[in-house]
Amino acid sequence: MRLFPGQTNASLVAAIDYLVESGGKRLRPTISLLATRFQQADQEKAIALSAAVEMLHTATLVHDDFIDNALLRRGHPTLNANWSPGATILTGDYMFARAANLVAETENVRIIKDFAGTLMVIVNGEFQQLFNGEHLAPPTREEYYQRIFAKTASLFAVCAESGAILAGLAEAQIKALSEYGRNLGLAFQIMDDILDFTGDEARLGKPVANDLRQGIVTLPALIFLDSHPNHPVILEAIAKKHPADADIEQVVSQIRASGSLAHAHADARQFAREAQNALLVLPDTVHRQALAGIADYAVDRDI
Amino acid sequence: MRLFPGQTNASLVAAIDYLVESGGKRLRPTISLLATRFQQADQEKAIALSAAVEMLHTATLVHDDFIDNALLRRGHPTLNANWSPGATILTGDYMFARAANLVAETENVRIIKDFAGTLMVIVNGEFQQLFNGEHLAPPTREEYYQRIFAKTASLFAVCAESGAILAGLAEAQIKALSEYGRNLGLAFQIMDDILDFTGDEARLGKPVANDLRQGIVTLPALIFLDSHPNHPVILEAIAKKHPADADIEQVVSQIRASGSLAHAHADARQFAREAQNALLVLPDTVHRQALAGIADYAVDRDI
Repeated sequence: MRLFPGQTNASLVAAIDYLVESGGKRLRPTISLLATRFQQADQEKAIALSAAVEMLHTATLVHDDFIDNALLRRGHPTLNANWSPGATILTGDYMFARAANLVAETENVRIIKDFAGTLMVIVNGEFQQLFNGEHLAPPTREEYYQRIFAKTASLFAVCAESGAILAGLAEAQIKALSEYGRNLGLAFQIMDDILDFTGDEARLGKPVANDLRQGIVTLPALIFLDSHPNHPVILEAIAKKHPADADIEQVVSQIRASGSLAHAHADARQFAREAQNALLVLPDTVHRQALAGIADYAVDRDI
Repeated sequence: MRLFPGQTNASLVAAIDYLVESGGKRLRPTISLLATRFQQADQEKAIALSAAVEMLHTATLVHDDFIDNALLRRGHPTLNANWSPGATILTGDYMFARAANLVAETENVRIIKDFAGTLMVIVNGEFQQLFNGEHLAPPTREEYYQRIFAKTASLFAVCAESGAILAGLAEAQIKALSEYGRNLGLAFQIMDDILDFTGDEARLGKPVANDLRQGIVTLPALIFLDSHPNHPVILEAIAKKHPADADIEQVVSQIRASGSLAHAHADARQFAREAQNALLVLPDTVHRQALAGIADYAVDRDI
């Protein structure tokens, strides 16, 4: 499959090649592909779908990194680290268009609608985050889960669901794979939020408690707040008053010592289990086992 | 038709309402709608298609204005004039997603593919422009026409063509409407390029010869160069050396006095005529007359 039409600008092709070759876990296209394997699916279309998923995901990262002024991603310089705003934005736009073009190659209107709707959910979630502003109170659990659904689980759900649709599975099986993807995405994002407190800066390529520094309260901090309501540094962060580094580091130590991370990890494992349970309506094939294994990986990884 | 799902962030809805209500000629959705009227088309789908066209067009303008740091559009402040880069980029992204979502409501895979492919052409063209860099020679006519095809005519073509596809017209008629759109788009863009030299700043909301100031040579300047090769100020502009205001104003006077604008206008009228000729394979209905009238308007307007 050619990723680009012949007339495509050489710098644009080079930029997208660079982004695609920068690595990443490729979980989303893997899930899509595995989901197509429960019945005979057109292989060309299955590959187009998986390429669309990764292209869409990478396009959102290109714009996110520009907006957050992030300079590293997956251990490599981001596009915006080296390029003008214009070139960066247009590369993301081109990737959105190419993702739409790839998903159209499935020739399946239901899948195409799901994709467009999911991109709306993702972008709306990012917008909500950006306009979140100063707050006096931490988010509710409900608000936290809504945020990570929009940010991560919505796309995992559509990956699994669209693979199932493409393979022509029964509605109950399509729904099961969608549930699998949603729960897996929630588990995956909670794990990311835990790693934000435990991971080391050199490996993750960002400072510890990066979210909290930006006033974003994730599950480990929410659990910690249950037993330490009105913790001054966390409230300061929520109010976008940017606590001092030393204060952040002290909260990180407190959270690490509190058992909140183990509690959050148990929640993530619960979502991973629910993802695996959703798979039980499907035949017990190597593909189902691989999907179940991804759910284990999502909550066992240390990066 | 609801333009936004219920959960959409209120600021995002307000921004898009503002953009949509800022006006504009609405030529693209009008062309789409008229093209659906040669046979019975599903009205809900025809409206979704027209909304998709305008949403896609406006999304590209949002990102363009950000990239160009333009502060006025259609006489109103641009989004980037008042908002952060992040909010502006995400609004454009959301509009791309909503455009994809609207076009999917046509349930027509061919139309969906055309849309995605056209967005790739548009963005690739903008990228090409951005990376154009310094040059010693002006573009060829061929390069000029390629640029305005990508920028404008490709979307006009897909507007007319997709309306025809939705209405279930015969292939020869679909092709004729696509040709109509392409020629109309070329005429329309040449007229825009003429107005860049003749229009007054207060009405257009940008300085005269705005393109030339940025080193972009359009048809009136290309025609002028035929009889004034190596004109120092134009070559200076092409080399991105940003000629002084007084020098630009002098070239504008020279171009106005040279007959180049009348020559460019004759070329624009020729494309408008070809657009009208393409319509002749269609039945002579009020809708065909309206489309022909749009082609006249495209080259007679003064804004």
